Amino acid sequence: MSVNQREIGRHTLLSEIRRQQPIARINLSERTGISRATVTTITAELLKEGLIEEVASAPSDKDARRGRPTVDLKIRGEAHLIAGAKISNLAISLVLMDFEGKQVAEHELALDKTVFDTDALAIVLGDSLAALTGKIGRHVTDVSGFGLGIAGIVDASQGFVHWSPSLDRRNVELARLLEQHLSIPVFVDNDANLVAIAEQAFGRGQGYSDFIVVTIESGVGMGIVIGNELYRGTRGCGAEFGHTKVHLDGALCRCGQRGCLEAYVADYALLREANIAGSADGAPQVEALLEDARRGDPVAKSIADRAGRMFAMGLANLVNIFDPELIILAGAQMQSSHLYAEEVIEAIRGSIVQIDKAPPEVVIHKWGNTMWALGAAAYALDNVSERALAGMAAHA
Amino acid sequence: MSVNQREIGRHTLLSEIRRQQPIARINLSERTGISRATVTTITAELLKEGLIEEVASAPSDKDARRGRPTVDLKIRGEAHLIAGAKISNLAISLVLMDFEGKQVAEHELALDKTVFDTDALAIVLGDSLAALTGKIGRHVTDVSGFGLGIAGIVDASQGFVHWSPSLDRRNVELARLLEQHLSIPVFVDNDANLVAIAEQAFGRGQGYSDFIVVTIESGVGMGIVIGNELYRGTRGCGAEFGHTKVHLDGALCRCGQRGCLEAYVADYALLREANIAGSADGAPQVEALLEDARRGDPVAKSIADRAGRMFAMGLANLVNIFDPELIILAGAQMQSSHLYAEEVIEAIRGSIVQIDKAPPEVVIHKWGNTMWALGAAAYALDNVSERALAGMAAHA
Repeated sequence: MSVNQREIGRHTLLSEIRRQQPIARINLSERTGISRATVTTITAELLKEGLIEEVASAPSDKDARRGRPTVDLKIRGEAHLIAGAKISNLAISLVLMDFEGKQVAEHELALDKTVFDTDALAIVLGDSLAALTGKIGRHVTDVSGFGLGIAGIVDASQGFVHWSPSLDRRNVELARLLEQHLSIPVFVDNDANLVAIAEQAFGRGQGYSDFIVVTIESGVGMGIVIGNELYRGTRGCGAEFGHTKVHLDGALCRCGQRGCLEAYVADYALLREANIAGSADGAPQVEALLEDARRGDPVAKSIADRAGRMFAMGLANLVNIFDPELIILAGAQMQSSHLYAEEVIEAIRGSIVQIDKAPPEVVIHKWGNTMWALGAAAYALDNVSERALAGMAAHA
Repeated sequence: MSVNQREIGRHTLLSEIRRQQPIARINLSERTGISRATVTTITAELLKEGLIEEVASAPSDKDARRGRPTVDLKIRGEAHLIAGAKISNLAISLVLMDFEGKQVAEHELALDKTVFDTDALAIVLGDSLAALTGKIGRHVTDVSGFGLGIAGIVDASQGFVHWSPSLDRRNVELARLLEQHLSIPVFVDNDANLVAIAEQAFGRGQGYSDFIVVTIESGVGMGIVIGNELYRGTRGCGAEFGHTKVHLDGALCRCGQRGCLEAYVADYALLREANIAGSADGAPQVEALLEDARRGDPVAKSIADRAGRMFAMGLANLVNIFDPELIILAGAQMQSSHLYAEEVIEAIRGSIVQIDKAPPEVVIHKWGNTMWALGAAAYALDNVSERALAGMAAHA
């Protein structure tokens, strides 16, 4: 068995234990096609490294009759402590989980501003992580990996933020800067990508190999899972949906270009129209506008309806291009309900290429910021696993 | 070594021989990480099956000094005869290749109609294949696999055509019907997917793992390669680009929906506008319109320019969503030159998300129908390889 094969074997077996745990060695061999002898060798290494542990299995009738003791394998939760955080418009949400993926603490911090310089952000995150780990009597430096989700264009492999509405400058080596401040490994990704990871690990994407998650907050985000893997694009900035164009030379967007989807569906886009119609005169304005629309005010209804139809058009284009099994509309804000309406989903169905086969399922998954943070932690957990296995390869 | 591992080993080694041939056994072992003993076992099986052959290698200086005879492995061209065909608007193009992928014959047949019933199409294809194989003194039944590219929405895994502009009805089990008529294995795919396969195997996509091919004929097609694999979507009807919407409630498309990209860039779309402006009065009308545009006629120029800008907007959306390394604009028709113009490529660059990193490369690859047919043959070759290896697994 070459070094390369042993590395692949370790990876395959640890993943399979994570998915199926608790699981007996013989079943691991059957499920992965890796020989029983190799499964025994590799799981011994993983046990020695402390990544997995043995537990007594519920004996089958046959085993019980023979009086044979049986042992299963599972992930060792105490192996690593993992943190995840999501920076929202005016809050940071954090969770702490063990190596099994079990949540052990959570914390939320209100912010008094939406745009940070990186030093200030590092301080806020350090304080929040201290509060989070303190809840179970641990320290920030006990954390093996910290995953951070942030809006914008992120090259996750480099932890590099090309641009984010939460940062006061472009081109920031955010993971490296935070690692210097926090002294723990940091993994940064686009927040919608992390929602896709969370949907795959804990949410509505479980059991689907190809799906799209669209998130609606103050902007519109997207994460794409193809063949069970998150798709990031060549430069690490794929899956950009909010700035796809839905109108040639259309409405001006905050990004400076024209005709972006966000320029038709984001809060500021609705308010732009409401201002023209003279009906935006109170705060919170967007909620008021949507309430007017629900009550049947014709101008408010026209504004909300067009946003929904533009959103449906953008989503139908995604269906035509990807032909996914499932689209998950994920978000926490009730104020986006006009984008989650049945008419919108009907409009998607009417705009996709028509074949005599059912269109992809569209599900709406409303969740809170904790779930976004869980996605960030799941991403950090993957990376910590990879590094632990890579470290074994180096000294094996 | 489990059955599963031996199958994967055969597949890996045959692919590596195809990529690197001629190649020595020891180099195969180094490149694939498969042990030298297993390489010897598996290549012996492939030799016995007749899929590969031994050839004397050019000896290195060291070998020559030792007087050691050296042997390389290569694909055995005579192992299988493969045919590929592309149905265009008024022609069928065919190529014949050996198992090494070397073209051994080609044939083109003009058609007197554009829409066929399946029986008539089977007869035309049977006659064309007879003419093609006859050129080297062989018969249709000598062909191990026939790949066919057709416009429309195709589930390639089933050889099932949901809809095609070349067929008079929807929902046709085209591969099965053609196999009954031709008595050889038939593999059907969307024609733009096959161009993507051809670009990957022989063309501008060589060496790229993630790229998009956009084809322009009477319609607009797309093929997507992600992670070196053609992406087909869940229902087999992904990568639909011509009917993505570029205008809410926009121009009526031949598909019956509104605002499709094709409704702005296809020939009939240009003529629709020219008719309104009263300037479409000759045949071939589209060429005349574009010639007028080049000469500076303001109405003609406005029609051609808008088509180009709509096309750029659609392409920019693909870049935002996929972030590919490369976009290949592939087509044979000079009349689409307004869509290949430098202004269009500039407009793409101006509409994608701006980061401080080079945008994807855009290349224009003008080629003839033979190259489309080569893509169809390359697809059949892949399938014939798979079936040959699967057959070995069954009787090994």
